[in-house]
Amino acid sequence: MFLTRTEYDRGVNTFSPEGRLFQVEYAIEAIKLGSTAIGLKTKEGVVLAVEKRITSPLLEPSSVEKIMEIDEHIGCAMSGLIADARTLVEHARVETQNHRFSYGEPMTVESTTQALCDLALRFGEGDEESMSRPFGVSLLIAGHDENGPSFERLNLETLIQRIYGWVYYTDPSGTFWQCNAKAIGSGSEGADSSLQEQYNKELTLQEAETIALSILKQVMEEKVTPNNVDIAKVSPTYHLYTPSEVEAVISRL
Amino acid sequence: MFLTRTEYDRGVNTFSPEGRLFQVEYAIEAIKLGSTAIGLKTKEGVVLAVEKRITSPLLEPSSVEKIMEIDEHIGCAMSGLIADARTLVEHARVETQNHRFSYGEPMTVESTTQALCDLALRFGEGDEESMSRPFGVSLLIAGHDENGPSFERLNLETLIQRIYGWVYYTDPSGTFWQCNAKAIGSGSEGADSSLQEQYNKELTLQEAETIALSILKQVMEEKVTPNNVDIAKVSPTYHLYTPSEVEAVISRL
Amino acid sequence: MFLTRTEYDRGVNTFSPEGRLFQVEYAIEAIKLGSTAIGLKTKEGVVLAVEKRITSPLLEPSSVEKIMEIDEHIGCAMSGLIADARTLVEHARVETQNHRFSYGEPMTVESTTQALCDLALRFGEGDEESMSRPFGVSLLIAGHDENGPSFERLNLETLIQRIYGWVYYTDPSGTFWQCNAKAIGSGSEGADSSLQEQYNKELTLQEAETIALSILKQVMEEKVTPNNVDIAKVSPTYHLYTPSEVEAVISRL
Amino acid sequence: MFLTRTEYDRGVNTFSPEGRLFQVEYAIEAIKLGSTAIGLKTKEGVVLAVEKRITSPLLEPSSVEKIMEIDEHIGCAMSGLIADARTLVEHARVETQNHRFSYGEPMTVESTTQALCDLALRFGEGDEESMSRPFGVSLLIAGHDENGPSFERLNLETLIQRIYGWVYYTDPSGTFWQCNAKAIGSGSEGADSSLQEQYNKELTLQEAETIALSILKQVMEEKVTPNNVDIAKVSPTYHLYTPSEVEAVISRL
Amino acid sequence: MFLTRTEYDRGVNTFSPEGRLFQVEYAIEAIKLGSTAIGLKTKEGVVLAVEKRITSPLLEPSSVEKIMEIDEHIGCAMSGLIADARTLVEHARVETQNHRFSYGEPMTVESTTQALCDLALRFGEGDEESMSRPFGVSLLIAGHDENGPSFERLNLETLIQRIYGWVYYTDPSGTFWQCNAKAIGSGSEGADSSLQEQYNKELTLQEAETIALSILKQVMEEKVTPNNVDIAKVSPTYHLYTPSEVEAVISRL
Amino acid sequence: MFLTRTEYDRGVNTFSPEGRLFQVEYAIEAIKLGSTAIGLKTKEGVVLAVEKRITSPLLEPSSVEKIMEIDEHIGCAMSGLIADARTLVEHARVETQNHRFSYGEPMTVESTTQALCDLALRFGEGDEESMSRPFGVSLLIAGHDENGPSFERLNLETLIQRIYGWVYYTDPSGTFWQCNAKAIGSGSEGADSSLQEQYNKELTLQEAETIALSILKQVMEEKVTPNNVDIAKVSPTYHLYTPSEVEAVISRL
Amino acid sequence: MFLTRTEYDRGVNTFSPEGRLFQVEYAIEAIKLGSTAIGLKTKEGVVLAVEKRITSPLLEPSSVEKIMEIDEHIGCAMSGLIADARTLVEHARVETQNHRFSYGEPMTVESTTQALCDLALRFGEGDEESMSRPFGVSLLIAGHDENGPSFERLNLETLIQRIYGWVYYTDPSGTFWQCNAKAIGSGSEGADSSLQEQYNKELTLQEAETIALSILKQVMEEKVTPNNVDIAKVSPTYHLYTPSEVEAVISRL
Repeated sequence: MFLTRTEYDRGVNTFSPEGRLFQVEYAIEAIKLGSTAIGLKTKEGVVLAVEKRITSPLLEPSSVEKIMEIDEHIGCAMSGLIADARTLVEHARVETQNHRFSYGEPMTVESTTQALCDLALRFGEGDEESMSRPFGVSLLIAGHDENGPSFERLNLETLIQRIYGWVYYTDPSGTFWQCNAKAIGSGSEGADSSLQEQYNKELTLQEAETIALSILKQVMEEKVTPNNVDIAKVSPTYHLYTPSEVEAVISRL
Repeated sequence: MFLTRTEYDRGVNTFSPEGRLFQVEYAIEAIKLGSTAIGLKTKEGVVLAVEKRITSPLLEPSSVEKIMEIDEHIGCAMSGLIADARTLVEHARVETQNHRFSYGEPMTVESTTQALCDLALRFGEGDEESMSRPFGVSLLIAGHDENGPSFERLNLETLIQRIYGWVYYTDPSGTFWQCNAKAIGSGSEGADSSLQEQYNKELTLQEAETIALSILKQVMEEKVTPNNVDIAKVSPTYHLYTPSEVEAVISRL
Repeated sequence: MFLTRTEYDRGVNTFSPEGRLFQVEYAIEAIKLGSTAIGLKTKEGVVLAVEKRITSPLLEPSSVEKIMEIDEHIGCAMSGLIADARTLVEHARVETQNHRFSYGEPMTVESTTQALCDLALRFGEGDEESMSRPFGVSLLIAGHDENGPSFERLNLETLIQRIYGWVYYTDPSGTFWQCNAKAIGSGSEGADSSLQEQYNKELTLQEAETIALSILKQVMEEKVTPNNVDIAKVSPTYHLYTPSEVEAVISRL
Repeated sequence: MFLTRTEYDRGVNTFSPEGRLFQVEYAIEAIKLGSTAIGLKTKEGVVLAVEKRITSPLLEPSSVEKIMEIDEHIGCAMSGLIADARTLVEHARVETQNHRFSYGEPMTVESTTQALCDLALRFGEGDEESMSRPFGVSLLIAGHDENGPSFERLNLETLIQRIYGWVYYTDPSGTFWQCNAKAIGSGSEGADSSLQEQYNKELTLQEAETIALSILKQVMEEKVTPNNVDIAKVSPTYHLYTPSEVEAVISRL
Repeated sequence: MFLTRTEYDRGVNTFSPEGRLFQVEYAIEAIKLGSTAIGLKTKEGVVLAVEKRITSPLLEPSSVEKIMEIDEHIGCAMSGLIADARTLVEHARVETQNHRFSYGEPMTVESTTQALCDLALRFGEGDEESMSRPFGVSLLIAGHDENGPSFERLNLETLIQRIYGWVYYTDPSGTFWQCNAKAIGSGSEGADSSLQEQYNKELTLQEAETIALSILKQVMEEKVTPNNVDIAKVSPTYHLYTPSEVEAVISRL
Repeated sequence: MFLTRTEYDRGVNTFSPEGRLFQVEYAIEAIKLGSTAIGLKTKEGVVLAVEKRITSPLLEPSSVEKIMEIDEHIGCAMSGLIADARTLVEHARVETQNHRFSYGEPMTVESTTQALCDLALRFGEGDEESMSRPFGVSLLIAGHDENGPSFERLNLETLIQRIYGWVYYTDPSGTFWQCNAKAIGSGSEGADSSLQEQYNKELTLQEAETIALSILKQVMEEKVTPNNVDIAKVSPTYHLYTPSEVEAVISRL
Repeated sequence: MFLTRTEYDRGVNTFSPEGRLFQVEYAIEAIKLGSTAIGLKTKEGVVLAVEKRITSPLLEPSSVEKIMEIDEHIGCAMSGLIADARTLVEHARVETQNHRFSYGEPMTVESTTQALCDLALRFGEGDEESMSRPFGVSLLIAGHDENGPSFERLNLETLIQRIYGWVYYTDPSGTFWQCNAKAIGSGSEGADSSLQEQYNKELTLQEAETIALSILKQVMEEKVTPNNVDIAKVSPTYHLYTPSEVEAVISRL
């Protein structure tokens, strides 16, 4: 069976007889090898937390950036190929700046996510900006926007969410979903189960920090320290925690 | 036999010795893996209903959009690769807006469908907008137009239909058909049989809602809730049902 | 033998050792899978008749268009991939309109046919309009023109024909022939034999309608109804029969 | 041996280890499948004669054009893929018209032939006009020109020939030769032998007609009629025989 | 297993089923064949040291450049394909000069590193400047900048580092890390272990020189001389040691 | 061994493991199948002689051109694919005319040869004028120029040669050599040996004619006649012998 | 092992699993088949000497150019494919002329060498000037420049060298080294050993001539004559020895 598989996946962007796109599936495999990242939406804002794999004590931990700012109201955590993520984030930064310049207001979180995914979808097309293969990275995009998403059904619940912020999850196929909480990367399976058990909509930001870090602790092979995890919040603006702020969360575990 | 098949389908858009286009057939396979969607034409307007697969309780159901607005008089339900559908819908939105701008009137449902299918047909051509593979998605396009389609034979029956609206069904080969009722996706076979039994041209919109949802219920593996189905109507303008409106239909089952 | 065949036909437009173009031959296979279409030239004009495969009672029969107008004096019946035919017909419509605009008179049927075939011949060239594979469709082009074709030998017989109209038959290789009567599609072999028996140049338009439909009846697996056949004539302008006009022909069988 | 052959001929225009160009050789095979065509140079002008394969009695014989006019002083007979020949002839027609426009005099037969062959040579280059494979057609180009060819050695004999006209023979490799008489197509081997026996430079045009048709008669499987052969002469202008003129030649056999 | 590997890595930039990019991995292999290079950050500046393989006594040692200046405040040591490194360094030199010209101040070390990595990431894209394969080289980029990096978390420690300078390490995938000390090339494994033992943040520049050279001595197969090692420092400007300065360090071992 | 060869030579212009360019070698094979051509330099000018293969008595011998004029002071004989040679000669004709136009003096023989070889070298590059494969032809370029070649070492001997003229020999790799005498084509091996025996620098033009034709006679399978050989000289201008002039040389044998 | 090798080297410019670039290695093989060339740096200037393979006594020796002038202060000797070398030398000539025109002074030897290598490195990129394969040639570039190279470390020794001139050695990978003496081509191994034994920095130009020719004599299979070797010096300008000057050196052996 493996042999016939190889016949199809060499065309970068073609269907297999079963209707599958193998290059996208393989890119998803690349993410399963990545470090774990977690995002939670609370009524006070969004929390992102990531594991950082520091392979040598001589490496500067702060140079391993797995949480990045897109705009002052949007940040993202990533798992997979960091160099690919950097290209996507750079694209999103340009898009959000253009939006501010053209319309005089921040880009919504959903539009930003869609702009990222449009770029991801068009791999193998030979365009200026698109890559010759799928982007080997998943993102958790956390953000806050007053104007809200373009979903047609805006009931009371979503109006409240709008104030609290959003978590979007993207994969290499260019698809995205909006979530209350989500984990990606090598430990995502276990982390997602824990999130389903522990998540509720009444969490405070501080409770979310503790949950995120305690779940990371379970999936990481080494002791949690300010050097091997990063935490950020969007509430309502993006803030990456200092080592001492991370230390404070660790001490609460 | 399988081996010789593999010889032909790697050229993205070439015929096999039997005169088949395998990449298109494989894309159609991709749709058979998709969630089920149903469209019905009634004398009061058109109803669309889709199954949504919510893989995690932490996912926001309203962010899984399987019914989308194209213009205020046209909506569509989809099955297959959502990211591909987004590209087609985005293309149709630009086309309908351009038409309104150029001619000062809404684009007919048939012309909109044809514009979508022209894009779908030209995969593998290396054009600006076309993809390097077939679009892995089927659409049910529901719409209403006063000016009617360009079919040459307009007898009384079609004049009436024009007032009631239209359902078009497209597949990855760029072909389209106009239908009274149609189901697509993994449960389409059973759903189509049920539609043939239950459909008649005298249905009210409310009856159509009930039929659509009861058929979805049969093909879905879990209980129907406002979270895992979406309903929309074009009558004469597009409207996506709120959770409470969906709840109301469910309660009628 | 089959294996060596596969070596050659993957290059979209290359010769095999025996001097054959396999992709063109495979496209011709695609047409053998298509529904049957028939064209007859009479002294009162040309008749086209096609079988329509209505796979579901919920499908709108008039949306399955297998006879289309090119210009007011030219129509065509098709067999094979409908989406490909639409591209060719669209191309011919633009050509005939351009001709009217540039020269102030209708394009001759032969020039229109040649324009179609020039496009069909250039597949795999990477041009703007040409496809990356042969067009998988055969056409029967029926038309009337006062100025006549550019054949060098215009004796009395052809002068008469010019008044009655023309039937051209095209195949995926870009070749075309002018015929008195011709059948294409899955039932073409039997239909062609019947045409040779029943055709003579003194047929009236009404007799031709009856012959065309009686032959279609033989090759179709189901009962002939106004829903599953279409008839058109060019005499001297294009007219697609209404369901009641088709019904009238059926009743004469 | 066959297997290693297949390794080389897939590159459209590359040498095999023995220094051969297989795609050109395969195109020449395509011509061996074609109908037979004959050209003879006489002191009164040039005669062309071709076999036409009329596969059905319902086909209009005059629409099967195997002899075409290029300019009023040049015609050509063809064997192989008719659609390819049409492209070459169309190219030559444009070239000869351009020449008349630019220089105010007709293009010589040799220059016209060379223009055709330059296009044939450049297959697989990706140019605007060139094809992605060799042209699968051989031509016999018959013409008359006062200014004569550009050959360096113009002795008395060629001065006389110049007045009588020329026959050029082209093959898919883009090579051409000037001949007194030549046959191409499936019956060319036998026909060439007969020509060598029967040809002499003192033939009249009428004798040449008779020889050409009697040779065609030998290689054709059916009875010769005005429907299945075409004859043309350039003497000094191009003229395609009417059915009655062909009938007259047949009656002389 | 090896065979299936070969199926995937021929596409220059595609994922394998396990989510790996083989061409990047093979480029990393190329670096493992390269000579060893070492970089250390001290409180007085940064030290770079490289092994030079002088294959013949007739080769001019100073023409084997494995440490190059990028700007007056940035230098880099390399391991792998020297010709590839030259292209990257040339690119970085243009970027830093453009930055000085546009903004009137030196480019930060991090931005310079990122510019290098953006070029490295886009191999196989067909761009003007990008290569058709990964760059087969790793760099240790040493630099000093007053304005500091764009990291979000700037605590006291990093503020001190900013004054002392930076070491960045890049690999063929376009990823980079900031380090206190790092070794690359064929002897990197042993050298990294030694660095971890001997490195501390209180080292003087002179102590770092000695450590770097003593570690190189361990991994080199021949005696250390001013001909087969190069040393440079950035403190705060780039300086490549003269042979006598290298001799002085060697004498301290 | 043959199998591994096939792996390398399909890339039109790539090295084999032994450092060979197979497509060039195969093109050289194509020349070994060609007819024989001979060039000799005498103190009175240069002589070219070629064998012509007249496959049919009905072929016009003067239309088989194997010696062509490039400019009035340069001619060339060829062996291999005639259609390829025509392209090279056409290129050289344009170059020499441009040179006359730009500089008001004839192009030197060496520059003309180099222009031809630059075109030959760049096959497979996708340029406007270059081919997708090597040119399958060798040329013997004979010419006379007062200004002489650009060789750096001009002693008395070369000054004399300059007055007498030059013979250059080119092969499909784009390399060229200057010779006193040279044979190419299927009989080149035997002809070259004979040339080495019979050539000396004191030959008169008439002696050279006799030697060239007597050697051709040895390698040809049929009797030498004015129909199956061509002779030309450059002394100091290009002249192609008339049949009677050729007859005169034959009679001297 | 050989088979898996073939999998990787067909991509013109991709890494093998071991991190190797096979096409470059094969191009280096092509050079090992080339004739031997030697370069030596003395305190009075640089000497180049090459073996010339004169395959036939009828070939003009001076037309086999293996030492060429780049600018009046730079010359180069070559081994490998002569047609490739011609392209590189032509490129270098244009670069040095441009430099003189733009800056009013000669280009340094090192910059000239780097310009050559930049072109060599970018093979397979599809640029205007770059080739589709590596250049199959090695060069020994000999030159003199007052302004000296851009090496950072200029001690007394290099200042002296600057006056004496430089020898650079390039290979198909685009890498270059500066040497005191170097041999390339089929006899390079033995020649390099001899050079190491006999070279010292106090050689006079005359001694260097004798050493170069005596080493060539060892590796050549035939007697050394002014016809089968070439010698040139740059001291301080380029001069190619006349046959009598070469004779004088031979007589000293």
